[in-house]
Amino acid sequence: MLNNIGMKTGLAAAVLLLLQACGGDAPGAVAGDSAAAPQQTYEWKLVTAWPKNFPGLGHAPEVFAEKVEAMSNGRMKIRVYGDGELVPALEVFNAVSAGTAELGHGAAYYWKGKAPEAQFFTALPFGMNGREMESWIQYGGGQELWDELYEPFNLIPMPGGNTGVQMGGWFTKEINSKEDFQGLKMRIPGLAQDVLSRLGGVPVNMPGSELFTSLQTGVIDATEFNGPYNDLAFGLYEVSDYYYYPGWHEPGSVMEFLFNKEKFEALPADLQEILRTAAEAASLDMTNEFTARNTISLTELVNKHGVELREFPDDLLQELNRISQQVIDELADLSPIGARIHASYREYETNVKQFHAVSEEAFTRARKL
Amino acid sequence: MLNNIGMKTGLAAAVLLLLQACGGDAPGAVAGDSAAAPQQTYEWKLVTAWPKNFPGLGHAPEVFAEKVEAMSNGRMKIRVYGDGELVPALEVFNAVSAGTAELGHGAAYYWKGKAPEAQFFTALPFGMNGREMESWIQYGGGQELWDELYEPFNLIPMPGGNTGVQMGGWFTKEINSKEDFQGLKMRIPGLAQDVLSRLGGVPVNMPGSELFTSLQTGVIDATEFNGPYNDLAFGLYEVSDYYYYPGWHEPGSVMEFLFNKEKFEALPADLQEILRTAAEAASLDMTNEFTARNTISLTELVNKHGVELREFPDDLLQELNRISQQVIDELADLSPIGARIHASYREYETNVKQFHAVSEEAFTRARKL
Repeated sequence: MLNNIGMKTGLAAAVLLLLQACGGDAPGAVAGDSAAAPQQTYEWKLVTAWPKNFPGLGHAPEVFAEKVEAMSNGRMKIRVYGDGELVPALEVFNAVSAGTAELGHGAAYYWKGKAPEAQFFTALPFGMNGREMESWIQYGGGQELWDELYEPFNLIPMPGGNTGVQMGGWFTKEINSKEDFQGLKMRIPGLAQDVLSRLGGVPVNMPGSELFTSLQTGVIDATEFNGPYNDLAFGLYEVSDYYYYPGWHEPGSVMEFLFNKEKFEALPADLQEILRTAAEAASLDMTNEFTARNTISLTELVNKHGVELREFPDDLLQELNRISQQVIDELADLSPIGARIHASYREYETNVKQFHAVSEEAFTRARKL
Repeated sequence: MLNNIGMKTGLAAAVLLLLQACGGDAPGAVAGDSAAAPQQTYEWKLVTAWPKNFPGLGHAPEVFAEKVEAMSNGRMKIRVYGDGELVPALEVFNAVSAGTAELGHGAAYYWKGKAPEAQFFTALPFGMNGREMESWIQYGGGQELWDELYEPFNLIPMPGGNTGVQMGGWFTKEINSKEDFQGLKMRIPGLAQDVLSRLGGVPVNMPGSELFTSLQTGVIDATEFNGPYNDLAFGLYEVSDYYYYPGWHEPGSVMEFLFNKEKFEALPADLQEILRTAAEAASLDMTNEFTARNTISLTELVNKHGVELREFPDDLLQELNRISQQVIDELADLSPIGARIHASYREYETNVKQFHAVSEEAFTRARKL
């Protein structure tokens, strides 16, 4: 998936001035204000890791903000900022931590420079899928560990949508065995970079805005981005021949809402619950939107643009899986909390895979017989 | 899944009297009330198709009610009634339609006597799974058709959770081929009854409370209920030898919130949005809860109670699938709206299965290599 989209703008300073002029929070809100009391109002800033109005990923924070304003009857207004409008994408964590913005939307694995253990809360290569991740977080102990990890940063995290299993990426040459990954220059983010390196490939960091030209000119041999909906918008089918699957490196990435802990806890209880519930609803919205729009976009890519779908060869997938498990297990050595998150993740993963083997997977097999 | 659980109580009349005494809605709420105006308060009744506090299915309406009260700062209080406390499970649709209760929680296929087309909005045998169903409803045109179907009944439907793929059921004898379904007396609900009949089986209607004794005494040879979490609670492992999968008959059942349309539309806009958003969050909550608790319960059934898991034989699954598709296609002949819902469902199903083949399914295959 994307780890840094371009569209940086020079407007940050101007926007900041405007914001300061328009007021922001008034002080003195008391938790549990009675509904009949004079109502404190709030104007909050939500900084995101996506270009303003970016399809799918950028839609969920807009849905969230609209819901909060409507549910609070205007007591809380949230202004959504795209990447670079107030802070750059990769500064979202710091900005919300410091209170420059009260809220953020991004993905936990972007903050590995601050907390490498955060990578457990987006997606791991060959790890749990979206439904497995979200149930681990909400009902399997994941949320408590995530809270604990972010507490020193004055942050409260919450799931903020799911991409589902992504695509494996766009390739300018065919991949017939694991040897074809040797020397392969591929734009890919996160832990998958380590996996690719250990297999002899060359991982490249690159914003989404540069992918088209880089593939066209041969600066890279391959790139992933997300799924058909986002990939179609980038026009990558014009400059590469093969669209590979599955997205072994991101099997259901959980997006993230970030709340400044101090500001969140100073809110009246009803607004806190409005924010939490809006985040849950926006999260579900993104999952459903990606499923529906990826479906339509895949049909368009294949039927209208003649894209050739290819499955990665089994020997490559086996090798990628083997290396991925090593890379994941090394995260346990990061820190005591890293070890505890790793243990919780692994235990849940082992059990949920057994359940899904006799439910989701067995059904999918049955309907194809 | 369950279609009628016992636990009928004789308290309905007494509860009704209590309710009448405690006030209920005051008249005159105006949409768009300003937050600063004196606040109208509401006491609403939510009737459900589940015994009070029933695990999983009955938890989502409680989550919903708590969220609504907290987000509205007590302006709306919702009291949740179990099956038989105010009306019996299968009267939920009528009670909300008539305004006896303002809200309901159940499953659309329970109302096939009122609107047989409603069966499209829970689960179809060998049809779409949970994620496919929910994305069709929210982003694929399903919600609009569901609204249209319920409009003559003065009802607004919304998704209210998902069970995920259920289990195939508990059997007192082994199933080795499709012939073993001939003469089989099985408790199974909905369209699957037609499928079982056409294969020579004997479908039986029976509330959940009678399953244990009926299996034990041989009144039935087999029963399904839901997944490991609910099935464990019924103790069915004590009276049957084999636990079969997959739940071909319910591959991800969508539960349902029902709103009395007139009462909903008379609410201020903020409370309307609070109700909608709480329903979305409760829906996600149920999906995650079932995934996590089914996982734990399956481990317990196998490791602690020695339950033998069995997969239905391929020839049986193929035959059940073939007949299921016939039964589904016959729903198109019910009515003009039945034909439109069928067409929308089928088109979405065809496309989303293609997308999931290269995403969710391909990934699941890859991680097992």
